[in-house]
Amino acid sequence: TIYIITPTFARLVQKAELIRLSQTLLHVKNLHWIVVEDAAAKTPLVSDLLAHGGIKYTHLQVETPKDFKLKESDPNWLKPRGVEQRNLGLQWLRENRELSEEGVVYFADDDNTYSLKLFDEMRHTKRVSVWPVGLVGGLRFERPLVENGKVTGFYTAWKPNRPFPMDMAGFAISLQLLLANREAKFDLHVERGYLESSLLQSLVSMEELEPKAENCSKVLVWHTRTEKPKMKQEDVLQKQGIGSDPGVEV
Amino acid sequence: TIYIITPTFARLVQKAELIRLSQTLLHVKNLHWIVVEDAAAKTPLVSDLLAHGGIKYTHLQVETPKDFKLKESDPNWLKPRGVEQRNLGLQWLRENRELSEEGVVYFADDDNTYSLKLFDEMRHTKRVSVWPVGLVGGLRFERPLVENGKVTGFYTAWKPNRPFPMDMAGFAISLQLLLANREAKFDLHVERGYLESSLLQSLVSMEELEPKAENCSKVLVWHTRTEKPKMKQEDVLQKQGIGSDPGVEV
Ligand SMILES: O=c1ccn([C@@H]2O[C@H](COP(=O)(O)OP(=O)(O)O)[C@@H](O)[C@H]2O)c(=O)[nH]1
Ligand SMILES: O=c1ccn([C@@H]2O[C@H](COP(=O)(O)OP(=O)(O)O)[C@@H](O)[C@H]2O)c(=O)[nH]1
Ligand SMILES: [Mn+2]
Ligand SMILES: [Mn+2]
Repeated sequence: TIYIITPTFARLVQKAELIRLSQTLLHVKNLHWIVVEDAAAKTPLVSDLLAHGGIKYTHLQVETPKDFKLKESDPNWLKPRGVEQRNLGLQWLRENRELSEEGVVYFADDDNTYSLKLFDEMRHTKRVSVWPVGLVGGLRFERPLVENGKVTGFYTAWKPNRPFPMDMAGFAISLQLLLANREAKFDLHVERGYLESSLLQSLVSMEELEPKAENCSKVLVWHTRTEKPKMKQEDVLQKQGIGSDPGVEV
Repeated sequence: TIYIITPTFARLVQKAELIRLSQTLLHVKNLHWIVVEDAAAKTPLVSDLLAHGGIKYTHLQVETPKDFKLKESDPNWLKPRGVEQRNLGLQWLRENRELSEEGVVYFADDDNTYSLKLFDEMRHTKRVSVWPVGLVGGLRFERPLVENGKVTGFYTAWKPNRPFPMDMAGFAISLQLLLANREAKFDLHVERGYLESSLLQSLVSMEELEPKAENCSKVLVWHTRTEKPKMKQEDVLQKQGIGSDPGVEV
C-alpha cells in the first residue's frame, strides 16, 4: 500500500486543488490517502469530497499552533507549513498499522503536480527512496546526484549544506522504517529549510538512499503553486450586500 | 464523443499543467483531445506527452500572430490568448467530421481545474450547454441565472452587458451545430471580454442555452492559474555556467 499524507487548509482554491489531486490518486492501485486538515474541526467541504472521491482514505485534523500559523500578509516561506498535520499522519500510521504490514509513505502537498509514473517508482522502497523535484528552490529542478547507483550528493543551490537538501516531494519512506523508529517526526522548530532533514536524519544516511526515476534523471513531480485568485468584484458586491451566494460551494 | 480543444504554449509549468490535465481526461469515456500548440512547430515535449498519455488525441499547432502575442512583461489580460489555436481546432473538426456524427465540443485551457462530473453534464448537449465557473471575473464564481429551466440572465460583475458574459470554461457546443455553421469562430479582434460572445452570438440565443449542473447551482470547473516559478538560483548558476542540465525535461 502507498500511504499518501496530505496536509490541507481552507482557502479559495482548496477544493480545486483537492479535486485535481484526487483525480490523479484515483488512478493509483493500492493507495490509502491520509488527508489532514489544518483546522480546529473537520470541514464539510473536505469530508464530502473524500466521501465521494472513490479513494480509500482517512480524514484527520489538527490546527497549527497560533504562533506558527501564517498570517494573510506573511510571505509564504516565513513559517513552516503542514508540519503538525504530517506528524499526525505519522502518528495515525503508528497507532493503526503493524510492523508486519508492507507499505510506503509519501508526503504529497495538495498543490503539487504528480506524474502517475512517480507512484510506480516509489512503490518498491526498502528504506528511503529519492528522485528529482521540478520547479523548486529557484531552479528548474533539484535532484540527488547518483554515481554507480548510489547517492553521492545533491544538485541544489539554496543552503546546500543541509543534511538532506531535498524538498518534501522528493522522497518516500518505507512504512516499516517509520514503525520501527517511533520517535521520528518533523520538527516545527528547526531553521528554515531543515524540515525534511529533521525527519530523515533519524532514519537514514545519504549512502542508504535509493535513487529512483532512472538514477534521478527524470522529473516526475513538480512543485507547482496556484495563484491566489483576486476577489476584486466580490469585495465590491459584498459591500453592497449582493456578494455571490454563500450557499454555493466553490 | 466529447472533443476537448486545448490551446497550450511553452513555459516552465507547461508539462506539469498538461500532465495533470491529461490525468483528469484519462478518466473520461469517449473523449478525443485536440491539443493545439501556440508554436511555429510541434514540440517534442507535447508530442511525447500525448503519445504516452493513453488518451485518443489530435496534435496541431499554429503560432499566434506576432502583433497579438503577449510579451514576457505584458500583463496577462492585455491580449486574447489561445484564439487562433481554438479556431484551428474547430477547423480540424469541420474537415474531419461529418454532420451525421454525434459529439460535443469543449474548450479546456491547460491550467483550469475540471471535476469529472463536468463531463457527464456536458455529454448531453443539444445546442449549447452552460454552467457556473469558479474563481473567475474577480468573483467566487460567475453563473447563468436560471428560471423554470431557462437561462434568463447572468451573475457576473465585469462588463455584464456583453451578449454572453461567460468564461470559455462555462459552455460546451454540440458538434452538429458547429458543423452546420461553418463560419462560426472566435474573433481575435474584438474588445477585451467579448471573445466568447464572438463565437456564441452566431450559434445560439440566450433563451436556447441549456443549463446544466443542477440549474447552474454547482461549481464543477475552476479558473485556476498557476504561479510562474521564480528562477532566482537558476539565473545565478547559469551566469556561472553551471545551470541545471538542459537535457533534463521539466
Ligand atoms: O497554513 C497552512 C499552509 C499550508 N498548509 C498545507 O501544507 C502544504 C504545504 O504548503 P504550501 O503548498 O503553501 O507550501 P509551499 O511549499 O508551496 O511553499 C500544502 O499541502 C498546504 O495545503 C497547511 O496545512 N496550513
Ligand atoms: O501566448 C499564449 C498564452 C496562453 N495560451 C493558452 O491559452 C489558454 C488561455 O491562456 P491563460 O490560461 O494564460 O489565460 P487566462 O484565462 O488564465 O488569463 C491556455 O490554455 C494557455 O495555455 C496560448 O496558447 N498562448
Ligand atoms: Mn506548495
Ligand atoms: Mn488560464
